[in-house]
Amino acid sequence: MSDTVLVAAKTVEGAIGEVLRRRGVPEADARAAACGLVGANLRGVDTHGLSCLPDYAKALDEKRLKATPAMTVERRLPWAATLDADNGLGPVAATRAMELALESADRLGVGAVAVRRSNHFGAAGVYAAMAAERGCVGIVTANASSVCAPFGAAVPLLGTNPLAVAVPAGRYPAFVLDMATSEGSRKKVRKALAEGKTIPSGWALGPDGRPTTDPQAALDGVMLPFGGVKGAGVTLLMDILSGVLTGAEFGGRVLSVMTNQERESGNGHFVLAFKVSAFMPDEEFRARMDEEIARLKALPPAAGFDEVMYPGEREWRIEAERSAKGIPLPRSLVKEVVALGGEGLPAEV
Amino acid sequence: MSDTVLVAAKTVEGAIGEVLRRRGVPEADARAAACGLVGANLRGVDTHGLSCLPDYAKALDEKRLKATPAMTVERRLPWAATLDADNGLGPVAATRAMELALESADRLGVGAVAVRRSNHFGAAGVYAAMAAERGCVGIVTANASSVCAPFGAAVPLLGTNPLAVAVPAGRYPAFVLDMATSEGSRKKVRKALAEGKTIPSGWALGPDGRPTTDPQAALDGVMLPFGGVKGAGVTLLMDILSGVLTGAEFGGRVLSVMTNQERESGNGHFVLAFKVSAFMPDEEFRARMDEEIARLKALPPAAGFDEVMYPGEREWRIEAERSAKGIPLPRSLVKEVVALGGEGLPAEV
Repeated sequence: MSDTVLVAAKTVEGAIGEVLRRRGVPEADARAAACGLVGANLRGVDTHGLSCLPDYAKALDEKRLKATPAMTVERRLPWAATLDADNGLGPVAATRAMELALESADRLGVGAVAVRRSNHFGAAGVYAAMAAERGCVGIVTANASSVCAPFGAAVPLLGTNPLAVAVPAGRYPAFVLDMATSEGSRKKVRKALAEGKTIPSGWALGPDGRPTTDPQAALDGVMLPFGGVKGAGVTLLMDILSGVLTGAEFGGRVLSVMTNQERESGNGHFVLAFKVSAFMPDEEFRARMDEEIARLKALPPAAGFDEVMYPGEREWRIEAERSAKGIPLPRSLVKEVVALGGEGLPAEV
Repeated sequence: MSDTVLVAAKTVEGAIGEVLRRRGVPEADARAAACGLVGANLRGVDTHGLSCLPDYAKALDEKRLKATPAMTVERRLPWAATLDADNGLGPVAATRAMELALESADRLGVGAVAVRRSNHFGAAGVYAAMAAERGCVGIVTANASSVCAPFGAAVPLLGTNPLAVAVPAGRYPAFVLDMATSEGSRKKVRKALAEGKTIPSGWALGPDGRPTTDPQAALDGVMLPFGGVKGAGVTLLMDILSGVLTGAEFGGRVLSVMTNQERESGNGHFVLAFKVSAFMPDEEFRARMDEEIARLKALPPAAGFDEVMYPGEREWRIEAERSAKGIPLPRSLVKEVVALGGEGLPAEV
């Protein structure tokens, strides 16, 4: 028997909604959060989909996350707003923020929303992709609990701080860059340790502040941003946009709703969308974007690659497959979600 | 005798202006270009300052760059414009684009300008920093002639495509991230070859499409974007914003005004600025930004570092020193610029 079971996206979405509604989350919010999490699974980002639900449910049960937050919007300029998420669900806040930004973009060509007092929101690319579906370049950033050292530092200050940027195309699916700005992950370091392997250089510093490829030293030390000094600058920029500019926590003060019991997490997000038609006719842009992608895909692949792919392409393929065949879910996770009240999932797995 | 001579910034600026005016560049444009190039030198980015002038002058002499371009602005929305630079000087186009964006930001809180038919513009950070001086987050991107392979490709399609982002602070100088999105540079590869050294892994693929640390194989092969698959996505995004969105060349079709004789270079730039006061009072933002920087600088440094620095900090220190003491210029470069008509520079070096 396989370790995973295939479940239709609509079924997973329904189960997530039910788990959240049972914990007092209003219908519309439960639907938005379910859609955000399933969106991650559909794109193959399984670490940021249904697997987050048990932690969200626990935080709701323990009142560390508000089921019925009073999210408030303050609009300082016609195109710019701040959203105080009142310690509600991150996917709800991120969805609302992108919807607000897109409403402004429909009216004015541009919209941006700075979100504070939010939480873990799943996969940034899901919200950025909403913009591309509306003819916009969409940018989504977030900050997160501190695991990475700034360049030249021996201790953490920055999170995995995701950056997602989506750009619409024509006959090709949208460009969707969706990345953590940390290099490796502690999860992968622990895996290397368990398997007696080393980790790639550039992932971590040991407790002595020196680069290490030893997984134990990495766990005792600190993780690094991606891409050396350049990536470290981008990671810090994510904290500035998501934290400093939004009124959220920043500079090492964001906590994780998954692990902390102390106080609200204080995550911030920054969302910006603008119409490509602000600069040239929409159809012309899409044709040029198709040409960019076609040129890239026509290149000879490097050794070890079958084809050259652009950011988001693999995710769209997975989405097409999973939309048709269902999302492969670990049986243990399905059981856990059923126990939380996730109706509609296969009860006997 | 030292290989370099210290020259006051104003003197260098005057000499650049004179070299350009002698080639028919109008007064205001010559001043803008001079300011852009000297700005790079002041910040210590000597590869993008006065050292570019001989190539610019040669291109003007050979009519490959227009001394008196008819730059035209089309405004599709109150905050968004396109600038056709008519194959004029890149620093003039970039300065004008950021000025236009900042005028919109003064009125509306946000402004963006997409530039096509431009050229090499010096250091992106110089134009981004203009935004921070006006209380704005400033983003500047450009594309460039093809030297880097997209992720998974064996041949080049992308340029060194710079990204600069500036963010104002309070008592600290502004955050200014200014980076090429390529990992190494051919110049450094040639240096390694001359010195019989290897290059870091991640810089290049050999002609067989496999990663290499051999400088000759790298020169016969292709350079790589920074930061692996993530950085490669960012590099491609720079080409999309700077090329696809602007009406400039893209996807490997940009040429270099330094080396090509065929046709105009076709560089594009994208410039976006928004007031931090769109999201919170300016003073509050600056205080929070100071707090972010102070927390970063209070961290214990990693092994091999004396202190933790933020993007732009080193450049501001160099600017303070060079503003007071002058810019160190190679004597050979000074001679070359004097020969081009650079009045005011020390004639006997």
